[in-house]
Amino acid sequence: MSVTIADIRAAAALIEGQVVRTPIVRSGALSDQLGCDIFIKLETLQHTGSFKDRGALVKLKSLTPGERSRGVIAISAGNHAQGVAYHAQRLGIPATIVMPEGTPFNKVRRTQAFGAHVVLKGENINMAEPFAYDLADQEKLTFVHPYDDVRIIAGQGTVGLEMMEDVPDLETIIVPIGGGGIISGVAIAAKAINPKIEIIGVETELYPSMHNAVRGLEQKAGGDSIAEGIAVKSPGKITREIVERLVGDLLVVNESTIESAVQSMLVDAKIHTEGAGATPLAALREHAARFAGKRVGLIACGGNIDPRILASVLMRAMIRAGHMARLRITISDQPGTLARVTQQIGEAGGNIVEIYHQRMFYDVPVKLAELDAVVETRDSDHADDIMKRLAAAGFPTRRLHDSGARN
Amino acid sequence: MSVTIADIRAAAALIEGQVVRTPIVRSGALSDQLGCDIFIKLETLQHTGSFKDRGALVKLKSLTPGERSRGVIAISAGNHAQGVAYHAQRLGIPATIVMPEGTPFNKVRRTQAFGAHVVLKGENINMAEPFAYDLADQEKLTFVHPYDDVRIIAGQGTVGLEMMEDVPDLETIIVPIGGGGIISGVAIAAKAINPKIEIIGVETELYPSMHNAVRGLEQKAGGDSIAEGIAVKSPGKITREIVERLVGDLLVVNESTIESAVQSMLVDAKIHTEGAGATPLAALREHAARFAGKRVGLIACGGNIDPRILASVLMRAMIRAGHMARLRITISDQPGTLARVTQQIGEAGGNIVEIYHQRMFYDVPVKLAELDAVVETRDSDHADDIMKRLAAAGFPTRRLHDSGARN
Repeated sequence: MSVTIADIRAAAALIEGQVVRTPIVRSGALSDQLGCDIFIKLETLQHTGSFKDRGALVKLKSLTPGERSRGVIAISAGNHAQGVAYHAQRLGIPATIVMPEGTPFNKVRRTQAFGAHVVLKGENINMAEPFAYDLADQEKLTFVHPYDDVRIIAGQGTVGLEMMEDVPDLETIIVPIGGGGIISGVAIAAKAINPKIEIIGVETELYPSMHNAVRGLEQKAGGDSIAEGIAVKSPGKITREIVERLVGDLLVVNESTIESAVQSMLVDAKIHTEGAGATPLAALREHAARFAGKRVGLIACGGNIDPRILASVLMRAMIRAGHMARLRITISDQPGTLARVTQQIGEAGGNIVEIYHQRMFYDVPVKLAELDAVVETRDSDHADDIMKRLAAAGFPTRRLHDSGARN
Repeated sequence: MSVTIADIRAAAALIEGQVVRTPIVRSGALSDQLGCDIFIKLETLQHTGSFKDRGALVKLKSLTPGERSRGVIAISAGNHAQGVAYHAQRLGIPATIVMPEGTPFNKVRRTQAFGAHVVLKGENINMAEPFAYDLADQEKLTFVHPYDDVRIIAGQGTVGLEMMEDVPDLETIIVPIGGGGIISGVAIAAKAINPKIEIIGVETELYPSMHNAVRGLEQKAGGDSIAEGIAVKSPGKITREIVERLVGDLLVVNESTIESAVQSMLVDAKIHTEGAGATPLAALREHAARFAGKRVGLIACGGNIDPRILASVLMRAMIRAGHMARLRITISDQPGTLARVTQQIGEAGGNIVEIYHQRMFYDVPVKLAELDAVVETRDSDHADDIMKRLAAAGFPTRRLHDSGARN
């Protein structure tokens, strides 16, 4: 057997005091909403914002003095990069991180801030790989794989150990799957402690890679996922074997459910996660009946979401929920009209957030104009009331972009 | 003495298992940034998203059977409303909550969702007060004060007990002050356990009410604060006496520092807070030298921020940091121009987030036009590079709204 509970316990001892012993918290709001008992492991609170700290540290500590002085190399656009860079810096090990050329600036910046030498190469992770392996060969750097490595898996498994210590009677743990590192470690740890516990993996519909591997399918993997932390095209060999042996089921969730889950984690549970970190909640939502009444552990694996994406997720959710409506109001293009329109909206209890006034591009007669107003409303019925009131006052109004859905 | 450590211990026993035993976590990122050891108490993870659950439950449990059946009343636009409503519902006590007429919809909705009867009355909390007291008299309801009540203070004090249990060697605790309930309870608990610990209160510049009361000042209190949870015009009598006796210092922070702190809590520490919950970090930032090298506890008192405000905080921070620049580009109004401009920006590594094209309202000759582009950049220098490149290609460009500051 590739990784054992003893390896994971040894990893836990090795990293104690050097990574955050993260809390696991019960979310009353989500538990009430979904009819089960939901406990969330906050790996978002690790120093680099994800569980990747654990495996990276275990791996780095296993290096010989010679390997340490020559340095390490990793490929990653995200959390693995930061985990390796941070702990390499702490241990005085030179780190080179190869990132795809389109990597968001904030991730590049943060990795550089941990002292790593960042090389931007290739259009995506897969295209950067041959370059990184060549560089490792040339410069005798130790390659730190993000998931398909027994030490990485043992390190990530400490998440499972801690969950079982803190909430021993968990019945199910739902774990995001990219390459399969964390689910492998967690499954080994949790199943060793309680063989009856059910481990469920989650992938995004855009990257059902482990699902494909385990079930012999060939669904397409690719695209721009909100859960870029688990956007992995080919799962590991070691991890795949462990998943086949220990994981009860693999669920695939769609992108819009993940987006809603990011919003719900933040607004309902007050927990900040990245897309991948919200996938367990997305899976729970899509399969709520299956988990009804159970004690379920969700792993919020990371919190490194682009602030711009998060801002957009929050606004889109308000639109979807009817708390924000975009109204197109037909007006006569005369002085005083804007005041009369805004007064109607204000008196109806709507809060005007943005307003646009354009005369040129709308399909109305030349003496009329149209006004677009983004209005905060109590709910969809309230928006309807405002529209009726405007119409009655001589300003016919229709709603735009009603659904706000992702696709 | 009004409230003792014994009262707080009794309160802790009373509420055990009925409120969340919230974690306190060390933030490595913030500790590194600010040169001290920062521990954050996550009261954001309470069921209703703030510490108000604690005091509300202690108070409600102290009622006689007659008082319980007649019901309670509270005035609050926010967290106190939810704390009272939630625990009243749990205990089967009818609750009436009086909220000012302009209360954000999401707060009204959430309070109603906890089964409370919400009455919207008055322009602000102060104007709603006489109405609420009258209603309490008429309907024989027990008035649940948000802070100036010994049971409320004892309940909020359990936050301090838990912090001292979890991190016994804290040297300083920084606590938001609205009416003074939580700082009073925390000061009593922490000082009883370690008389040397320093308790520091924080208020927003818009509401320096406790500061005024304690120092005999008459600075103006009022305005629209991002920290609406501590926007209180008159502190309590009981709380003021406790603050004068036990609190080492009162700090006043400005609104833009609070805004930045909300962003930093989220982006750096991955902790979601409302404005009031970020004020301890704001105080630490404004007075970093004073806390250098110390073990400092910050109380993230709540997480109930309007998602729209949070989205806007995140975007404004990107603009301020130069990660988002608004460029006004002068173009000739000919086919193909937009493609050439966007190609220049793309080749320079800028990510176009929004683009506006208007011909009518800009101060350029009639055959030219201007284009506004919001571009994500690595930093301010990167934006300058993009501007130079555009100018060299025949598109003179200037930057708009450079500061993005709040006022």
